[in-house]
Amino acid sequence: MRVRHKPWAKDKLSAYPQYVVQTPEENRGNWQNIFEQKGPIHIEVGTGKGRFISEMAKANPSINYIGIEIQESVIVTALDRLIDADVPNIRLMNSNAADLTTFFAENEIDRVYLNFSDPWPKTRHEKRRLTYKTFLNTYEKILVKNGEIHFKTDNQGLFEYSLWSFSQYNMLLKYISLDLHNSDYEGNIETEYEEKFSNKGSRIYRCEVQFK
Amino acid sequence: MRVRHKPWAKDKLSAYPQYVVQTPEENRGNWQNIFEQKGPIHIEVGTGKGRFISEMAKANPSINYIGIEIQESVIVTALDRLIDADVPNIRLMNSNAADLTTFFAENEIDRVYLNFSDPWPKTRHEKRRLTYKTFLNTYEKILVKNGEIHFKTDNQGLFEYSLWSFSQYNMLLKYISLDLHNSDYEGNIETEYEEKFSNKGSRIYRCEVQFK
Repeated sequence: MRVRHKPWAKDKLSAYPQYVVQTPEENRGNWQNIFEQKGPIHIEVGTGKGRFISEMAKANPSINYIGIEIQESVIVTALDRLIDADVPNIRLMNSNAADLTTFFAENEIDRVYLNFSDPWPKTRHEKRRLTYKTFLNTYEKILVKNGEIHFKTDNQGLFEYSLWSFSQYNMLLKYISLDLHNSDYEGNIETEYEEKFSNKGSRIYRCEVQFK
Repeated sequence: MRVRHKPWAKDKLSAYPQYVVQTPEENRGNWQNIFEQKGPIHIEVGTGKGRFISEMAKANPSINYIGIEIQESVIVTALDRLIDADVPNIRLMNSNAADLTTFFAENEIDRVYLNFSDPWPKTRHEKRRLTYKTFLNTYEKILVKNGEIHFKTDNQGLFEYSLWSFSQYNMLLKYISLDLHNSDYEGNIETEYEEKFSNKGSRIYRCEVQFK
Protein backbone atom coordinates (compact mmCIF):
# COMPACT_ATOMS: atom_id res chain seq x y z
CA MET A 1 0.00 0.00 0.00
CA ARG A 2 1.41 3.39 -0.94
CA VAL A 3 1.00 5.72 2.02
CA ARG A 4 0.93 9.48 2.16
CA HIS A 5 3.33 10.60 4.87
CA LYS A 6 1.56 12.29 7.76
CA PRO A 7 4.16 14.07 9.91
CA TRP A 8 1.55 14.76 12.60
CA ALA A 9 0.55 11.08 12.95
CA LYS A 10 3.04 10.24 15.70
CA ASP A 11 1.83 13.03 17.95
CA LYS A 12 -1.80 12.12 17.39
CA LEU A 13 -1.16 8.46 18.29
CA SER A 14 0.50 9.66 21.51
CA ALA A 15 -2.47 11.89 22.34
CA TYR A 16 -4.92 8.97 22.62
CA PRO A 17 -3.48 6.46 25.09
CA GLN A 18 -7.01 5.18 25.78
CA TYR A 19 -7.04 3.73 22.23
CA VAL A 20 -3.38 3.40 21.28
CA VAL A 21 -1.28 1.33 23.66
CA GLN A 22 1.87 3.42 24.09
CA THR A 23 4.28 0.89 25.62
CA PRO A 24 2.83 -2.52 24.71
CA GLU A 25 5.81 -4.45 26.09
CA GLU A 26 4.80 -3.32 29.59
CA ASN A 27 1.49 -5.18 29.24
CA ARG A 28 3.15 -8.49 28.44
CA GLY A 29 1.26 -11.18 30.38
CA ASN A 30 -1.23 -8.61 31.62
CA TRP A 31 -3.39 -7.76 28.59
CA GLN A 32 -6.60 -9.02 30.16
CA ASN A 33 -6.44 -6.16 32.60
CA ILE A 34 -6.29 -3.32 30.11
CA PHE A 35 -9.77 -4.06 28.79
CA GLU A 36 -12.97 -3.22 30.63
CA GLN A 37 -14.01 -6.86 30.73
CA LYS A 38 -12.09 -10.09 30.51
CA GLY A 39 -12.50 -12.19 27.36
CA PRO A 40 -10.62 -13.90 24.55
CA ILE A 41 -8.08 -11.64 22.85
CA HIS A 42 -7.95 -11.60 19.06
CA ILE A 43 -5.24 -9.65 17.27
CA GLU A 44 -5.05 -8.45 13.70
CA VAL A 45 -1.51 -8.25 12.39
CA GLY A 46 -1.39 -5.47 9.80
CA THR A 47 -4.63 -3.79 10.77
CA GLY A 48 -4.31 -0.99 8.22
CA LYS A 49 -7.07 1.61 8.45
CA GLY A 50 -8.89 -0.52 11.00
CA ARG A 51 -12.30 -1.15 9.48
CA PHE A 52 -12.16 -4.93 9.87
CA ILE A 53 -11.14 -4.97 13.49
CA SER A 54 -13.46 -2.18 14.61
CA GLU A 55 -16.43 -3.83 12.90
CA MET A 56 -15.45 -7.16 14.46
CA ALA A 57 -15.26 -5.48 17.86
CA LYS A 58 -18.74 -4.04 17.45
CA ALA A 59 -20.15 -7.39 16.29
CA ASN A 60 -18.47 -9.39 19.08
CA PRO A 61 -18.57 -7.36 22.29
CA SER A 62 -17.41 -10.27 24.47
CA ILE A 63 -14.10 -10.52 22.59
CA ASN A 64 -11.23 -8.08 23.06
CA TYR A 65 -9.39 -6.96 19.93
CA ILE A 66 -5.96 -5.53 19.31
CA GLY A 67 -5.08 -4.05 15.93
CA ILE A 68 -1.36 -3.97 15.16
CA GLU A 69 0.02 -1.83 12.37
CA ILE A 70 3.58 -0.75 11.73
CA GLN A 71 2.81 2.30 9.59
CA GLU A 72 1.85 5.26 11.76
CA SER A 73 0.43 7.17 8.78
CA VAL A 74 -2.05 4.30 8.27
CA ILE A 75 -2.96 3.36 11.82
CA VAL A 76 -3.83 6.99 12.51
CA THR A 77 -6.88 6.46 10.29
CA ALA A 78 -7.85 3.48 12.44
CA LEU A 79 -7.51 5.77 15.44
CA ASP A 80 -9.91 8.28 13.88
CA ARG A 81 -12.38 5.45 13.45
CA LEU A 82 -12.13 4.51 17.14
CA ILE A 83 -12.51 8.10 18.27
CA ASP A 84 -15.74 8.28 16.27
CA ALA A 85 -17.10 4.88 17.28
CA ASP A 86 -15.94 4.66 20.91
CA VAL A 87 -15.93 0.86 21.05
CA PRO A 88 -14.64 -0.33 24.45
CA ASN A 89 -13.21 -3.74 23.43
CA ILE A 90 -10.48 -2.64 21.05
CA ARG A 91 -6.98 -1.22 21.26
CA LEU A 92 -4.38 -0.29 18.66
CA MET A 93 -0.63 -0.82 18.63
CA ASN A 94 1.80 0.98 16.30
CA SER A 95 4.24 -1.93 16.34
CA ASN A 96 6.22 -4.41 14.28
CA ALA A 97 4.81 -7.92 13.81
CA ALA A 98 8.29 -9.36 14.21
CA ASP A 99 8.29 -8.28 17.86
CA LEU A 100 5.06 -9.99 18.94
CA THR A 101 6.73 -12.15 21.59
CA THR A 102 8.04 -9.03 23.33
CA PHE A 103 4.48 -7.74 23.59
CA PHE A 104 2.57 -10.91 24.42
CA ALA A 105 3.26 -13.82 26.76
CA GLU A 106 2.72 -17.49 25.91
CA ASN A 107 -0.95 -18.45 25.51
CA GLU A 108 -2.04 -14.85 25.89
CA ILE A 109 -3.73 -14.55 22.48
CA ASP A 110 -6.73 -16.56 21.27
CA ARG A 111 -6.71 -15.86 17.55
CA VAL A 112 -4.62 -14.10 14.90
CA TYR A 113 -6.19 -12.39 11.90
CA LEU A 114 -4.15 -11.68 8.79
CA ASN A 115 -5.99 -9.68 6.15
CA PHE A 116 -4.55 -8.70 2.79
CA SER A 117 -0.99 -8.81 4.02
CA ASP A 118 1.74 -7.48 1.77
CA PRO A 119 2.40 -10.33 -0.70
CA TRP A 120 6.15 -9.68 -1.08
CA PRO A 121 6.09 -11.60 -4.38
CA LYS A 122 9.83 -11.76 -4.96
CA THR A 123 11.43 -14.98 -3.72
CA ARG A 124 14.21 -13.06 -2.00
CA HIS A 125 11.55 -11.33 0.13
CA GLU A 126 9.89 -14.56 1.28
CA LYS A 127 11.00 -13.98 4.88
CA ARG A 128 8.96 -10.78 5.01
CA ARG A 129 5.65 -12.51 4.25
CA LEU A 130 3.50 -12.68 7.38
CA THR A 131 2.90 -16.39 6.72
CA TYR A 132 6.61 -17.26 6.56
CA LYS A 133 7.68 -19.88 9.09
CA THR A 134 9.37 -17.45 11.48
CA PHE A 135 6.11 -15.49 11.77
CA LEU A 136 4.14 -18.73 12.21
CA ASN A 137 6.53 -19.63 15.00
CA THR A 138 5.89 -16.25 16.62
CA TYR A 139 2.11 -16.65 16.41
CA GLU A 140 2.36 -20.17 17.82
CA LYS A 141 4.26 -18.88 20.83
CA ILE A 142 1.73 -16.25 21.82
CA LEU A 143 -1.41 -18.24 20.91
CA VAL A 144 -3.31 -20.61 23.16
CA LYS A 145 -2.99 -24.33 22.39
CA ASN A 146 -4.80 -25.14 19.15
CA GLY A 147 -4.97 -21.42 18.41
CA GLU A 148 -6.06 -20.36 14.95
CA ILE A 149 -5.00 -18.01 12.20
CA HIS A 150 -7.79 -16.61 10.02
CA PHE A 151 -6.32 -15.37 6.79
CA LYS A 152 -7.72 -13.69 3.71
CA THR A 153 -6.15 -12.15 0.65
CA ASP A 154 -6.86 -11.38 -2.96
CA ASN A 155 -3.30 -12.29 -3.90
CA GLN A 156 -3.25 -15.74 -5.53
CA GLY A 157 0.48 -16.18 -5.13
CA LEU A 158 0.44 -15.27 -1.45
CA PHE A 159 -2.48 -17.63 -0.83
CA GLU A 160 -0.76 -20.52 -2.60
CA TYR A 161 2.43 -19.81 -0.68
CA SER A 162 0.61 -19.54 2.62
CA LEU A 163 -1.29 -22.82 2.23
CA TRP A 164 2.05 -24.44 1.47
CA SER A 165 3.74 -22.74 4.42
CA PHE A 166 0.92 -23.68 6.84
CA SER A 167 1.17 -27.30 5.71
CA GLN A 168 4.97 -27.36 6.02
CA TYR A 169 4.51 -26.05 9.56
CA ASN A 170 2.19 -28.99 10.26
CA MET A 171 -0.88 -26.81 10.76
CA LEU A 172 -4.40 -28.11 10.25
CA LEU A 173 -6.57 -26.57 7.54
CA LYS A 174 -10.03 -26.14 9.07
CA TYR A 175 -11.78 -24.02 6.45
CA ILE A 176 -10.99 -22.85 2.95
CA SER A 177 -12.75 -20.74 0.37
CA LEU A 178 -11.23 -20.02 -3.02
CA ASP A 179 -13.91 -17.42 -3.79
CA LEU A 180 -15.17 -15.98 -0.53
CA HIS A 181 -17.62 -13.49 -2.00
CA ASN A 182 -19.38 -16.24 -3.95
CA SER A 183 -19.37 -18.76 -1.12
CA ASP A 184 -21.86 -19.63 1.61
CA TYR A 185 -19.61 -18.11 4.29
CA GLU A 186 -21.71 -15.80 6.43
CA GLY A 187 -20.76 -12.76 8.44
CA ASN A 188 -17.76 -11.69 6.39
CA ILE A 189 -16.55 -8.25 7.41
CA GLU A 190 -14.76 -6.56 4.55
CA THR A 191 -11.59 -4.57 4.92
CA GLU A 192 -11.29 -1.27 3.02
CA TYR A 193 -8.92 -2.96 0.57
CA GLU A 194 -11.20 -6.00 0.18
CA GLU A 195 -14.20 -3.88 -0.78
CA LYS A 196 -12.20 -1.97 -3.36
CA PHE A 197 -10.60 -4.95 -5.03
CA SER A 198 -13.57 -7.30 -4.93
CA ASN A 199 -15.58 -4.54 -6.59
CA LYS A 200 -12.95 -4.58 -9.33
CA GLY A 201 -13.53 -8.31 -9.78
CA SER A 202 -10.70 -9.77 -7.73
CA ARG A 203 -11.36 -13.12 -6.09
CA ILE A 204 -10.98 -13.18 -2.34
CA TYR A 205 -9.33 -16.26 -0.83
CA ARG A 206 -9.84 -17.19 2.81
CA CYS A 207 -8.77 -19.94 5.15
CA GLU A 208 -8.72 -20.87 8.82
CA VAL A 209 -5.75 -22.87 10.05
CA GLN A 210 -4.96 -24.25 13.47
CA PHE A 211 -1.74 -25.07 15.28
CA LYS A 212 -1.62 -28.71 16.37
CA MET B 1 -19.43 -37.47 -17.47
CA ARG B 2 -22.42 -38.65 -19.48
CA VAL B 3 -21.43 -41.79 -21.35
CA ARG B 4 -22.93 -43.37 -24.43
CA HIS B 5 -23.46 -47.04 -23.71
CA LYS B 6 -21.31 -49.27 -25.90
CA PRO B 7 -22.59 -52.86 -25.63
CA TRP B 8 -19.53 -54.17 -27.49
CA ALA B 9 -17.05 -52.55 -25.08
CA LYS B 10 -16.78 -55.50 -22.71
CA ASP B 11 -15.85 -57.89 -25.50
CA LYS B 12 -13.31 -55.49 -26.94
CA LEU B 13 -11.62 -55.05 -23.54
CA SER B 14 -11.38 -58.85 -23.27
CA ALA B 15 -9.85 -59.11 -26.71
CA TYR B 16 -6.73 -57.10 -25.80
CA PRO B 17 -5.17 -58.71 -22.72
CA GLN B 18 -1.80 -57.23 -23.69
CA TYR B 19 -3.23 -53.76 -22.83
CA VAL B 20 -6.14 -54.47 -20.48
CA VAL B 21 -5.28 -56.49 -17.39
CA GLN B 22 -8.09 -59.04 -17.21
CA THR B 23 -7.75 -60.33 -13.64
CA PRO B 24 -5.79 -57.62 -11.81
CA GLU B 25 -6.17 -59.25 -8.39
CA GLU B 26 -3.94 -62.08 -9.60
CA ASN B 27 -1.07 -59.61 -10.07
CA ARG B 28 -1.23 -58.37 -6.48
CA GLY B 29 2.37 -58.04 -5.27
CA ASN B 30 3.69 -58.98 -8.70
CA TRP B 31 3.02 -55.93 -10.88
CA GLN B 32 6.68 -55.26 -11.61
CA ASN B 33 6.74 -58.47 -13.65
CA ILE B 34 3.94 -57.63 -16.05
CA PHE B 35 5.88 -54.75 -17.60
CA GLU B 36 8.76 -55.17 -20.01
CA GLN B 37 11.13 -53.36 -17.68
CA LYS B 38 11.09 -52.71 -13.96
CA GLY B 39 10.46 -49.19 -12.76
CA PRO B 40 8.26 -47.06 -10.49
CA ILE B 41 4.54 -47.71 -10.96
CA HIS B 42 2.21 -44.72 -11.22
CA ILE B 43 -1.54 -45.23 -11.34
CA GLU B 44 -4.29 -42.92 -12.49
CA VAL B 45 -7.57 -43.50 -10.69
CA GLY B 46 -10.37 -42.57 -13.08
CA THR B 47 -8.34 -42.59 -16.25
CA GLY B 48 -11.27 -41.78 -18.54
CA LYS B 49 -10.38 -41.79 -22.21
CA GLY B 50 -6.70 -42.21 -21.36
CA ARG B 51 -5.00 -39.24 -22.96
CA PHE B 52 -3.23 -38.11 -19.80
CA ILE B 53 -1.78 -41.47 -18.88
CA SER B 54 -0.76 -42.46 -22.40
CA GLU B 55 0.99 -39.11 -22.96
CA MET B 56 2.68 -39.49 -19.59
CA ALA B 57 3.83 -42.98 -20.55
CA LYS B 58 5.34 -41.68 -23.78
CA ALA B 59 7.06 -38.80 -21.98
CA ASN B 60 8.44 -40.99 -19.16
CA PRO B 61 9.51 -44.35 -20.62
CA SER B 62 11.26 -45.46 -17.40
CA ILE B 63 8.01 -45.29 -15.41
CA ASN B 64 5.26 -47.90 -15.66
CA TYR B 65 1.68 -46.65 -15.74
CA ILE B 66 -1.66 -48.23 -14.94
CA GLY B 67 -4.88 -46.48 -15.88
CA ILE B 68 -7.91 -47.51 -13.82
CA GLU B 69 -11.41 -46.70 -14.99
CA ILE B 70 -14.70 -48.19 -13.83
CA GLN B 71 -16.75 -47.33 -16.93
CA GLU B 72 -16.11 -49.83 -19.69
CA SER B 73 -17.72 -47.57 -22.33
CA VAL B 74 -15.09 -44.93 -21.49
CA ILE B 75 -11.97 -47.01 -20.97
CA VAL B 76 -12.56 -48.64 -24.36
CA THR B 77 -11.54 -45.29 -25.90
CA ALA B 78 -8.32 -45.43 -23.88
CA LEU B 79 -7.78 -48.90 -25.29
CA ASP B 80 -8.16 -47.58 -28.86
CA ARG B 81 -5.49 -45.03 -28.04
CA LEU B 82 -3.09 -47.74 -26.83
CA ILE B 83 -3.74 -49.91 -29.88
CA ASP B 84 -2.79 -46.95 -32.07
CA ALA B 85 0.22 -45.84 -30.05
CA ASP B 86 1.66 -49.17 -28.90
CA VAL B 87 3.38 -47.78 -25.80
CA PRO B 88 5.02 -50.59 -23.81
CA ASN B 89 4.94 -49.07 -20.32
CA ILE B 90 1.20 -48.78 -19.79
CA ARG B 91 -1.69 -51.05 -18.86
CA LEU B 92 -5.39 -50.47 -18.29
CA MET B 93 -7.75 -51.88 -15.70
CA ASN B 94 -11.54 -51.78 -15.90
CA SER B 95 -11.93 -51.73 -12.12
CA ASN B 96 -13.41 -49.93 -9.13
CA ALA B 97 -11.18 -47.55 -7.14
CA ALA B 98 -12.71 -48.83 -3.91
CA ASP B 99 -11.03 -52.20 -4.50
CA LEU B 100 -7.44 -50.96 -4.92
CA THR B 101 -6.08 -52.97 -2.00
CA THR B 102 -7.32 -56.19 -3.60
CA PHE B 103 -5.30 -55.35 -6.72
CA PHE B 104 -2.13 -53.91 -5.19
CA ALA B 105 0.04 -54.96 -2.26
CA GLU B 106 1.50 -52.57 0.31
CA ASN B 107 4.20 -50.26 -1.07
CA GLU B 108 3.59 -51.52 -4.60
CA ILE B 109 2.61 -48.15 -6.09
CA ASP B 110 4.84 -45.06 -6.31
CA ARG B 111 2.33 -42.36 -7.17
CA VAL B 112 -1.42 -41.83 -7.58
CA TYR B 113 -2.86 -39.41 -10.12
CA LEU B 114 -6.38 -38.08 -9.74
CA ASN B 115 -7.53 -35.94 -12.64
CA PHE B 116 -10.92 -34.25 -12.86
CA SER B 117 -12.58 -36.75 -10.57
CA ASP B 118 -16.34 -36.65 -10.22
CA PRO B 119 -17.00 -33.82 -7.74
CA TRP B 120 -20.07 -35.41 -6.11
CA PRO B 121 -21.12 -31.98 -4.86
CA LYS B 122 -23.94 -33.07 -2.56
CA THR B 123 -22.89 -33.49 1.05
CA ARG B 124 -24.59 -36.87 1.28
CA HIS B 125 -22.30 -38.11 -1.51
CA GLU B 126 -19.08 -37.02 0.22
CA LYS B 127 -18.01 -40.65 0.66
CA ARG B 128 -17.92 -41.15 -3.10
CA ARG B 129 -15.36 -38.38 -3.71
CA LEU B 130 -11.99 -39.89 -4.57
CA THR B 131 -10.34 -37.63 -1.99
CA TYR B 132 -12.59 -38.78 0.87
CA LYS B 133 -10.69 -40.24 3.81
CA THR B 134 -11.51 -43.86 3.03
CA PHE B 135 -9.97 -43.45 -0.42
CA LEU B 136 -6.94 -41.66 1.06
CA ASN B 137 -6.54 -44.61 3.40
CA THR B 138 -6.64 -46.97 0.43
CA TYR B 139 -4.01 -44.97 -1.46
CA GLU B 140 -1.81 -44.82 1.63
CA LYS B 141 -1.92 -48.61 1.95
CA ILE B 142 -0.75 -49.33 -1.59
CA LEU B 143 1.72 -46.44 -1.88
CA VAL B 144 5.37 -46.48 -0.90
CA LYS B 145 6.34 -44.53 2.22
CA ASN B 146 6.03 -40.79 1.56
CA GLY B 147 4.07 -41.61 -1.60
CA GLU B 148 2.33 -38.76 -3.36
CA ILE B 149 -1.03 -37.95 -4.86
CA HIS B 150 -1.01 -35.52 -7.78
CA PHE B 151 -4.45 -34.06 -8.19
CA LYS B 152 -6.04 -31.62 -10.61
CA THR B 153 -9.57 -30.46 -11.18
CA ASP B 154 -11.55 -27.53 -12.50
CA ASN B 155 -14.13 -27.95 -9.75
CA GLN B 156 -13.60 -25.31 -7.07
CA GLY B 157 -15.73 -27.10 -4.50
CA LEU B 158 -13.94 -30.40 -4.97
CA PHE B 159 -10.56 -28.69 -4.73
CA GLU B 160 -11.49 -26.86 -1.52
CA TYR B 161 -12.87 -30.09 -0.08
CA SER B 162 -9.81 -32.06 -1.10
CA LEU B 163 -7.31 -29.62 0.41
CA TRP B 164 -9.32 -29.82 3.62
CA SER B 165 -9.49 -33.62 3.46
CA PHE B 166 -5.73 -33.96 2.76
CA SER B 167 -4.99 -31.71 5.75
CA GLN B 168 -7.37 -33.61 8.04
CA TYR B 169 -5.55 -36.79 6.98
CA ASN B 170 -2.27 -35.16 8.06
CA MET B 171 -0.84 -35.08 4.55
CA LEU B 172 1.84 -32.62 3.49
CA LEU B 173 1.04 -30.09 0.76
CA LYS B 174 4.11 -29.97 -1.49
CA TYR B 175 2.84 -27.94 -4.43
CA ILE B 176 -0.25 -25.93 -5.18
CA SER B 177 -1.49 -23.90 -8.12
CA LEU B 178 -4.82 -22.12 -8.10
CA ASP B 179 -4.58 -21.37 -11.81
CA LEU B 180 -2.45 -24.02 -13.45
CA HIS B 181 -2.73 -22.76 -17.02
CA ASN B 182 -1.46 -19.32 -15.98
CA SER B 183 1.30 -20.60 -13.72
CA ASP B 184 4.96 -21.36 -14.26
CA TYR B 185 4.34 -25.12 -13.96
CA GLU B 186 6.01 -26.84 -16.87
CA GLY B 187 5.23 -30.09 -18.60
CA ASN B 188 1.50 -30.18 -17.88
CA ILE B 189 -0.23 -32.89 -19.88
CA GLU B 190 -3.84 -32.05 -20.43
CA THR B 191 -6.68 -34.52 -20.16
CA GLU B 192 -9.43 -34.42 -22.77
CA TYR B 193 -11.75 -32.83 -20.22
CA GLU B 194 -9.10 -30.30 -19.14
CA GLU B 195 -8.53 -29.05 -22.68
CA LYS B 196 -12.24 -28.61 -23.26
CA PHE B 197 -13.01 -26.79 -20.03
CA SER B 198 -9.91 -24.62 -19.87
CA ASN B 199 -10.70 -23.49 -23.41
CA LYS B 200 -14.09 -22.43 -22.05
CA GLY B 201 -12.32 -20.31 -19.44
CA SER B 202 -12.42 -22.63 -16.42
CA ARG B 203 -9.55 -22.34 -13.99
CA ILE B 204 -7.59 -25.50 -13.41
CA TYR B 205 -6.49 -26.23 -9.84
CA ARG B 206 -3.61 -28.57 -9.09
CA CYS B 207 -1.75 -29.85 -6.05
CA GLU B 208 0.77 -32.46 -4.99
CA VAL B 209 0.34 -33.95 -1.55
CA GLN B 210 2.42 -36.49 0.31
CA PHE B 211 1.64 -39.06 2.99
CA LYS B 212 3.78 -38.54 6.10
